[in-house]
Amino acid sequence: MQAVTFQAPGQVRVEECPDPVLGDGDDAIVRVEASGICGSDLHLYHGRIPLEPGFILGHEFVGTVTDAGPDVTDVAVGDRVLGCFVTACGRCFFCRRRAFHKCVDSRVFGHGKTLGNLPGAQAEQVLVPHANLTLRRVPPGLSSDAALFAGDVMGTGFHAIRSAEVAPGDVVVVLGLGPVGLCAVQAARALGAGHVIAVDDVPERLAMAERFGAEPVHRGEQDPKAAVRRATSGRGADACIDAVGHPDVLDLACRLARGGGTVSVTGVYSERCPIHMGIVWIKALTLKTGQANVIAHVDPVLAMMSAGLLDPTPLVSRHAPLADAPEAYAAYARREALKIVLTP
Amino acid sequence: MQAVTFQAPGQVRVEECPDPVLGDGDDAIVRVEASGICGSDLHLYHGRIPLEPGFILGHEFVGTVTDAGPDVTDVAVGDRVLGCFVTACGRCFFCRRRAFHKCVDSRVFGHGKTLGNLPGAQAEQVLVPHANLTLRRVPPGLSSDAALFAGDVMGTGFHAIRSAEVAPGDVVVVLGLGPVGLCAVQAARALGAGHVIAVDDVPERLAMAERFGAEPVHRGEQDPKAAVRRATSGRGADACIDAVGHPDVLDLACRLARGGGTVSVTGVYSERCPIHMGIVWIKALTLKTGQANVIAHVDPVLAMMSAGLLDPTPLVSRHAPLADAPEAYAAYARREALKIVLTP
Amino acid sequence: MQAVTFQAPGQVRVEECPDPVLGDGDDAIVRVEASGICGSDLHLYHGRIPLEPGFILGHEFVGTVTDAGPDVTDVAVGDRVLGCFVTACGRCFFCRRRAFHKCVDSRVFGHGKTLGNLPGAQAEQVLVPHANLTLRRVPPGLSSDAALFAGDVMGTGFHAIRSAEVAPGDVVVVLGLGPVGLCAVQAARALGAGHVIAVDDVPERLAMAERFGAEPVHRGEQDPKAAVRRATSGRGADACIDAVGHPDVLDLACRLARGGGTVSVTGVYSERCPIHMGIVWIKALTLKTGQANVIAHVDPVLAMMSAGLLDPTPLVSRHAPLADAPEAYAAYARREALKIVLTP
Amino acid sequence: MQAVTFQAPGQVRVEECPDPVLGDGDDAIVRVEASGICGSDLHLYHGRIPLEPGFILGHEFVGTVTDAGPDVTDVAVGDRVLGCFVTACGRCFFCRRRAFHKCVDSRVFGHGKTLGNLPGAQAEQVLVPHANLTLRRVPPGLSSDAALFAGDVMGTGFHAIRSAEVAPGDVVVVLGLGPVGLCAVQAARALGAGHVIAVDDVPERLAMAERFGAEPVHRGEQDPKAAVRRATSGRGADACIDAVGHPDVLDLACRLARGGGTVSVTGVYSERCPIHMGIVWIKALTLKTGQANVIAHVDPVLAMMSAGLLDPTPLVSRHAPLADAPEAYAAYARREALKIVLTP
Repeated sequence: MQAVTFQAPGQVRVEECPDPVLGDGDDAIVRVEASGICGSDLHLYHGRIPLEPGFILGHEFVGTVTDAGPDVTDVAVGDRVLGCFVTACGRCFFCRRRAFHKCVDSRVFGHGKTLGNLPGAQAEQVLVPHANLTLRRVPPGLSSDAALFAGDVMGTGFHAIRSAEVAPGDVVVVLGLGPVGLCAVQAARALGAGHVIAVDDVPERLAMAERFGAEPVHRGEQDPKAAVRRATSGRGADACIDAVGHPDVLDLACRLARGGGTVSVTGVYSERCPIHMGIVWIKALTLKTGQANVIAHVDPVLAMMSAGLLDPTPLVSRHAPLADAPEAYAAYARREALKIVLTP
Repeated sequence: MQAVTFQAPGQVRVEECPDPVLGDGDDAIVRVEASGICGSDLHLYHGRIPLEPGFILGHEFVGTVTDAGPDVTDVAVGDRVLGCFVTACGRCFFCRRRAFHKCVDSRVFGHGKTLGNLPGAQAEQVLVPHANLTLRRVPPGLSSDAALFAGDVMGTGFHAIRSAEVAPGDVVVVLGLGPVGLCAVQAARALGAGHVIAVDDVPERLAMAERFGAEPVHRGEQDPKAAVRRATSGRGADACIDAVGHPDVLDLACRLARGGGTVSVTGVYSERCPIHMGIVWIKALTLKTGQANVIAHVDPVLAMMSAGLLDPTPLVSRHAPLADAPEAYAAYARREALKIVLTP
Repeated sequence: MQAVTFQAPGQVRVEECPDPVLGDGDDAIVRVEASGICGSDLHLYHGRIPLEPGFILGHEFVGTVTDAGPDVTDVAVGDRVLGCFVTACGRCFFCRRRAFHKCVDSRVFGHGKTLGNLPGAQAEQVLVPHANLTLRRVPPGLSSDAALFAGDVMGTGFHAIRSAEVAPGDVVVVLGLGPVGLCAVQAARALGAGHVIAVDDVPERLAMAERFGAEPVHRGEQDPKAAVRRATSGRGADACIDAVGHPDVLDLACRLARGGGTVSVTGVYSERCPIHMGIVWIKALTLKTGQANVIAHVDPVLAMMSAGLLDPTPLVSRHAPLADAPEAYAAYARREALKIVLTP
Repeated sequence: MQAVTFQAPGQVRVEECPDPVLGDGDDAIVRVEASGICGSDLHLYHGRIPLEPGFILGHEFVGTVTDAGPDVTDVAVGDRVLGCFVTACGRCFFCRRRAFHKCVDSRVFGHGKTLGNLPGAQAEQVLVPHANLTLRRVPPGLSSDAALFAGDVMGTGFHAIRSAEVAPGDVVVVLGLGPVGLCAVQAARALGAGHVIAVDDVPERLAMAERFGAEPVHRGEQDPKAAVRRATSGRGADACIDAVGHPDVLDLACRLARGGGTVSVTGVYSERCPIHMGIVWIKALTLKTGQANVIAHVDPVLAMMSAGLLDPTPLVSRHAPLADAPEAYAAYARREALKIVLTP
């Protein structure tokens, strides 16, 4: 089959790779109809996260089940399905507590040996372990463009709002309007947030956040603190989402939150970071962190997409055939699109 | 001042009553700009709940604070405010646990001696005990028609959904599309329910539920069970709201719910009622009951109204001057309106 | 192998049955070291729940894994394990929400065709489907007598307290001091209940409840309402457990609960039952019902048993070899023991 | 009246001060029977937190109500009461959400102008604002030595465990065995933690933690990581309590926690602090911080003390008459006691 493989920093190739074969009893094989290029693919593309040359990329996908092991009971051959970006076994200590994102057998598609050695989905076919949990049927009428967000980017934006325990009527600040941040804006509104303040410095992203119901605040030209004060009688935001992963953003999130508020960190951190614990402590903040628990969220996300309450399709600004993946990656790296969808 | 008083079953009168005077330190007096006639007023009007002749009716109101005791700190003279239909002290065992609806000093406006002997708000002025909790400032731009729902009918519809612990994407059934049921439909959608099935037998109410985003099901002509099966792959609804208060409705709610689902009962019950505990138990249902905890909900309800996420104004089908209250009550008793607003 | 089979109401037999064989990939076979006779076995024994003649009884067991399919990862051949009384698949709609007790593939050991056609554990060997979830390793040092409660009776008593959302310091009433009620008393204390009132009319059971930290109240000779009033300044109990399954007990539970309190029903109901909804509604009670979610609870129950915080062994009043099962059943039916343990 | 006043770093004096007088309607005056010297008093004593000379110290107290304003309804003159260390109004945005520790009218006893200018309780009498929430009746039979912990040190240890969302059977690590850490050990056990690992380097404190049911780990001589690995099959602790307030302790807490675990920070921070966000994020940790919400906890804490489930009296190693406060402070500063109780 044809697949997109990593070769070297800044270089991907579409090449012939072996067809996947079933291994475990709960494996399935999916013929891919659409796969996404995601911000986290850029970490691999730029070499910031090391990856073995020749490894197949991609962790967002929609397709049709073409084969399945005997223990696959929740989807069947012929079903149109979407995948989560990560697998979970459903039976370990963590899965039993619904912490699927901490599963001891967690593997991320298309991220190489360190994250489970699971070939990616930017390909004609993909092998899906633990298919009962990793796959979901696409609800009737939902487009591939929408569905492939459910198991990754929208799942993460939704997780940001849920993990922040946003309550109805709350004032929420979303810092960083990449795809995850924009999905968090949508999720906040759809779950009853009273006011969402969206902060970034890219006018197009601010415009989209406004279209999704947020008050846009240009970080360089406007004062987020003033916006928050206005919206909260000076009290501070009930919840702040750090959708960037930068110490300055985290610091700002802590300063914008009210006493007893929550800061939810979906942006990735990998190093030490100075945090003003004096501010955090005196405000009695809660910090929630880590990769999204998308397997726990994918059912409600799909139901809300199906109902039209969440709609990430405005983020898809470009489609390309799988064969044009090298060019698509280059364009994505130049930030020319919020989401590029590849079709075989 | 002029006020609407109960005289006898089917008979109310507008008459001169003494102006209210401040008593406790946290009392306030509100000059009423709008008050509502509510379904529960009909219980009094029809004599199903006994009331002393001459007692001032009404428990929904918007107005302006004209006087306040020294301990009133959260609103001030001159503030435009709305009231909750019930008071709470803020310091007893129940209030300390946010169970404001079970406050030991709970009093309901306009319901006579048995519910706290607190004169009602269908008057030019109303005395408000525990004003810090009972009153809220009306957010700028919110109409009186909308605001007077916050502390009663919308607060109750919202409570139905929150007490049912409706989760994002859930399938919710609302049984009974009076004002509370219709507000529950709105609240369910605004809080992320994936699908709402609204059941009644009045075409106008079904049409309004549809306008609010629900699938309307005419109880006499269509089969609610079939609708629920279709929406849930045969599983049953995640949550059912009994917004009527009749054993048949409660029974239907239990039959429509899925295993592990919730039935939230906002309809009023006062007697023994045969419940099929075999069905309840085998399904492992949770039943939530009782008067709404509106004081706990009024802040988020107002924030969501202010954001346009909740809007009960379509329910206001008629306005009348206070002097025309007898006619308005008669019309409401004939079910000619979902909500009638009186203005002095 | 030898096994205890149902023959006719009041008649069980120990006879030779075929050894179990592995079927699905996540099946395991356990050589049984101890199995319990449980109150729910009596329903079968007396014929109140119909069962096919020749069906193997028993749903509480401890033993050693002797064989396992390729998908059994969480326990291994040679492990000493205990079983839950019910199975769950770990991947369906309900399991993904931790509602393991509502799993679409739920099967109860030893209850015949209507509950999944799964032969029981009062035998030398037992076949265990979905072994990753159904089995747990016995913590080092824990006796078989204790361990076999974890997946059934103690799991159910624990569930009663958890589902009632008992908070630290709460006043809890346990109605009915069979094994489940007594385990609920223990669980309430171990989870921080401030005061437990235990109601029954059997002096030995009341004495054991007192030994477990409760205030015993003899239902026929003392007034449970007076006891609750004393313990709560007249307010009512925070939570009441109906561990019997009789309309009078459920009615009493509702009357003893405080406003905003919870009634948790672990006793089994199968029919219509008159409930005073007027009392339930005016108190704004929450009712929690249904079979215990023991698979969700077995890890914490085992951890607390291992720590000595829960100890059901005082309930084991009798041991018998498997061959003496007919006599043991007869004795249990005469209520001569709270728990009888059979050993092959 | 006689009272203990701050004079200069390291110097307190017992001197005649004016008797308190009622001001607001919900003020009360308490004749103090016992007051505690607390670790946070040492910050004032040493001058690390600046305080006005002549200000009365002390924020832990038990006594009898001698006078009360007209709005004090929950306690009465003659009642034996204990105080919380901090006040709350019961009606602001935060109190309505039970975040009493973030009340806009929060004042801390004996901490000078910056924390509300509220004279302390190491005196013959103390003025208590918002007495309905700040005071609680002492349950019959509870000693003053125990009761004065409820509104401060035990309330804080309890808060650490509750805010960490410790679940039944969890493995909990308490880092730092001052009075708060020791109370957290007790609370963890009384709320059902399966295993508590208590870390410090003072043998007496480790011995007391062991007596309270914990596994003691001497930080200098033993390896906390090894202890956690042993107790959790290598997984990490479910919850870690930082009861110290030092960056090294917080870092260790994050390293000892499991994936998806919680770190609860009751130790005080006032400055920037390097946190390894890479570890925090990859583990998907939750951090809970800030001053304890003792007013929310004081009812359950008292109920559990009254039931014998919590008992802080072993921490009281010394009593002294109020007149000997200077010597008592000096002894406490030399760490000669875990708690010193002053009696007028």
